[in-house]
Amino acid sequence: MSLRSLRLRAYRQLEPTAWTSKGLSPTNWVLASLILIAVMNAILETEPLVAAGRERMFDDLEVIVASIFSVEYAARVWTVVENPAFAQYRFPRLRYMVSAIAIIDLAAILPAFFAFGGASSVVLRFFRVFRMIRLAKLGRTSRAWRTIREAIYERRYEFGLVLGLVAVAVLISGSLLYWAEADAQPDKFGSIPRALWWAIVTLTTIGYGDAYPITPLGKALAALIALTGVMLIALPTGLFAASFTEGIERHRDRADRREGPDA
Amino acid sequence: MSLRSLRLRAYRQLEPTAWTSKGLSPTNWVLASLILIAVMNAILETEPLVAAGRERMFDDLEVIVASIFSVEYAARVWTVVENPAFAQYRFPRLRYMVSAIAIIDLAAILPAFFAFGGASSVVLRFFRVFRMIRLAKLGRTSRAWRTIREAIYERRYEFGLVLGLVAVAVLISGSLLYWAEADAQPDKFGSIPRALWWAIVTLTTIGYGDAYPITPLGKALAALIALTGVMLIALPTGLFAASFTEGIERHRDRADRREGPDA
Amino acid sequence: MSLRSLRLRAYRQLEPTAWTSKGLSPTNWVLASLILIAVMNAILETEPLVAAGRERMFDDLEVIVASIFSVEYAARVWTVVENPAFAQYRFPRLRYMVSAIAIIDLAAILPAFFAFGGASSVVLRFFRVFRMIRLAKLGRTSRAWRTIREAIYERRYEFGLVLGLVAVAVLISGSLLYWAEADAQPDKFGSIPRALWWAIVTLTTIGYGDAYPITPLGKALAALIALTGVMLIALPTGLFAASFTEGIERHRDRADRREGPDA
Amino acid sequence: MSLRSLRLRAYRQLEPTAWTSKGLSPTNWVLASLILIAVMNAILETEPLVAAGRERMFDDLEVIVASIFSVEYAARVWTVVENPAFAQYRFPRLRYMVSAIAIIDLAAILPAFFAFGGASSVVLRFFRVFRMIRLAKLGRTSRAWRTIREAIYERRYEFGLVLGLVAVAVLISGSLLYWAEADAQPDKFGSIPRALWWAIVTLTTIGYGDAYPITPLGKALAALIALTGVMLIALPTGLFAASFTEGIERHRDRADRREGPDA
Repeated sequence: MSLRSLRLRAYRQLEPTAWTSKGLSPTNWVLASLILIAVMNAILETEPLVAAGRERMFDDLEVIVASIFSVEYAARVWTVVENPAFAQYRFPRLRYMVSAIAIIDLAAILPAFFAFGGASSVVLRFFRVFRMIRLAKLGRTSRAWRTIREAIYERRYEFGLVLGLVAVAVLISGSLLYWAEADAQPDKFGSIPRALWWAIVTLTTIGYGDAYPITPLGKALAALIALTGVMLIALPTGLFAASFTEGIERHRDRADRREGPDA
Repeated sequence: MSLRSLRLRAYRQLEPTAWTSKGLSPTNWVLASLILIAVMNAILETEPLVAAGRERMFDDLEVIVASIFSVEYAARVWTVVENPAFAQYRFPRLRYMVSAIAIIDLAAILPAFFAFGGASSVVLRFFRVFRMIRLAKLGRTSRAWRTIREAIYERRYEFGLVLGLVAVAVLISGSLLYWAEADAQPDKFGSIPRALWWAIVTLTTIGYGDAYPITPLGKALAALIALTGVMLIALPTGLFAASFTEGIERHRDRADRREGPDA
Repeated sequence: MSLRSLRLRAYRQLEPTAWTSKGLSPTNWVLASLILIAVMNAILETEPLVAAGRERMFDDLEVIVASIFSVEYAARVWTVVENPAFAQYRFPRLRYMVSAIAIIDLAAILPAFFAFGGASSVVLRFFRVFRMIRLAKLGRTSRAWRTIREAIYERRYEFGLVLGLVAVAVLISGSLLYWAEADAQPDKFGSIPRALWWAIVTLTTIGYGDAYPITPLGKALAALIALTGVMLIALPTGLFAASFTEGIERHRDRADRREGPDA
Repeated sequence: MSLRSLRLRAYRQLEPTAWTSKGLSPTNWVLASLILIAVMNAILETEPLVAAGRERMFDDLEVIVASIFSVEYAARVWTVVENPAFAQYRFPRLRYMVSAIAIIDLAAILPAFFAFGGASSVVLRFFRVFRMIRLAKLGRTSRAWRTIREAIYERRYEFGLVLGLVAVAVLISGSLLYWAEADAQPDKFGSIPRALWWAIVTLTTIGYGDAYPITPLGKALAALIALTGVMLIALPTGLFAASFTEGIERHRDRADRREGPDA
């Protein structure tokens, strides 16, 4: 087998959109599993109850996984000239290396070999999840991905408007409670940013209980805000349900038309 | 350019509904940005961690923004005679100055120049948000605004009824828990208004944790109330989803009819 | 005017279903307002911060309202013979007095004149709310009431099944956490009824924070249960949305058919 | 009556799918009631406030119920040869005894006669609930069961995708808060598994209040995450609503077609 045909075969194994059979290539199945292992490894490594005394083991596993991904990164740079989207450029490999996808991949590999500050390095390693999402979009869930994305896209102005209404509701709720509770609880409602924290925790119905009104006026206002908040939360859910129903009907109508009058 | 034509051009720049091109006029884009800056300024000014030692800076910014809005207010009073809705009155400018829109605008300007009591003055400044909403209704989101408003309006009696049912559920839940827990926790369930606070925080599923039943009877009742509450919250969401779906279908039917039988 | 025709007119004023014009009779509007006043009175009377030193005022108001309702009760007993539903019995007035409606009315009146034990008497007074609901069903909201009731009735087996699934989920969640946390937190998870309290507060997403797992196993199980719980809560909302959409379409189809082919 | 025909009659009484009349056989009604009693018994037995001094009573009731279920188990093994699904095997009775259904039944019986470790034995007894579900699927709710299952099955890829998105959102939220809060609150955000607990409790809007950010950066991130979380929770609800609406329409279309053009 010539180097050229090897490169083409490697490209088809690595690039999920170039895989001609259904689903994912064997190489991508292995890489997806490795990402899952690497993510679990990164999660457990930070927990002293699990990792204490086993730091070495976790570090070694990360270095092994990162080495495999380094090889894969090199193979991608080598094979990218097969990709029509990059082949048109003068320096296709350089062009690929400065693409968002390649930078994210590299950023997830580097922390294994160079020591960064504690927490940040873990966050970088999680960039591997983005690769996972890219793979997930291609398998059997690609149609599902499209229907959900379309349902949101078709009604994007409505969703934007609801987000704006939520922002205004948060602002009004926060300033009302600031006005009512600032004197009674200066540490929790003594400024608008503090009151906004309460407003968000309340309107999303999370309700940690770290901040809540204690004056009668504050409680009366909060009661009204809470009841309105429930209605606000109904809006995005209802919007999505309606938009999704609409999308299903549209697809069915299109299918009916294609069948024609002889159906 | 005569003063008259200048006034007409200024009117078209200021009044969003009079702008003949798509979207908002450049003047209104600048004003919208200023409102955002002014709101951020007002929020951060109240937070000691941010504002301590920089009170002057925040005050100056507010005075600058408020001065621009004062000029805009004067310009609006001057140009309002171009507005057919006001031109019909004997004193169109006075008529405009006593309209809700102008009073809200003025109320948001005044706190910058006259010292009001702490918290209230911030709330007044937030009145600028209403202007923001008025502008938002005109841009690209105007169709989205209409569909959402229609979905709520078409089923207003159903929404009103659900609100009534929620009110009755809150009242019944509160009095049941008052009856069960008043003796065990007089500070939290010792009166019906106190028990109603618990009922609202529970039925909206916020659950701060500042009040919850501790007696077996109270817990049994609260468990039943919580499970019913989840069903109640399903009502407004389901209503909105159905009403929105209905609105989409109605618009499509209308479009189909317009296309006619030759489609 | 003869006593007979007076009785008929009084009956039409009192019985909302017998009122021939649109909406509610003037008498029922007055009674509805009195119920609202009585409910507010009963709520505020229990709050020491409001009622301390004014107990007499609250008691007097309740006695006045209860007296008016006593007169109304007597008038209803007197006029019930005009009601075809009761006129068929041998003793229509006695028959009415032992009906659920009349007993609830009487139970709400009595606490004003006879001293019952504290909290129970307030709950009895709230029975007036049921009258309010009966009146609300007749006004403009009667169509809304029917659509909501139909949406729930049409899918009653689905709602029942979802309730059953929720009950099973609560039972399984509770016993899993009892198994995982009983030793670590005997006061909160030491028995299944205690763990069920946690399960209900968690699956409804209220989350007071009075009970939560602290062991790693308990937290892992609770995390899975929480994610499942969110899906469970999607069921009744989705069911109601779909059933309501179905009801709207059915009504429209019926309207289309009525219009006929000449539409 | 011969032993053979007795066995057939017993089989029809025991096996719910073999019952020729509508609903459940009398035997299964009795067994369903016994399961409810046994479950209530197992729940209350664990609560010291109820069971203290009455352990004997609860134990006796469990032994009685378990004895009845032992007889039923023996009868099922005896009659299973009548079941065509098992009759095809060489040893139908052995084959039945190693089926999941029979093992679950046995596992629920054994704890009554053999002492297992405390909590586990109660969980085993709850296996009876699975029998309850099997019976519930057959009665009047069978159609409801099918519509709900179909609504979930038809959109299983969309639900799977949403679950995946929730998992990614939990992972990203958790690592962001770990990055922001690990130093300030090492006991609550000091490792990613701990931060994931916070993320799940927050994104499901439970909000126990055992862990929440305290630094300004952590609160700002948590506020964004909370607002996004509300949108995420809209997805499964909206999906289920749309899928259920779709299912209802499909069934109606099929019914319309069956009626034909002469309708």
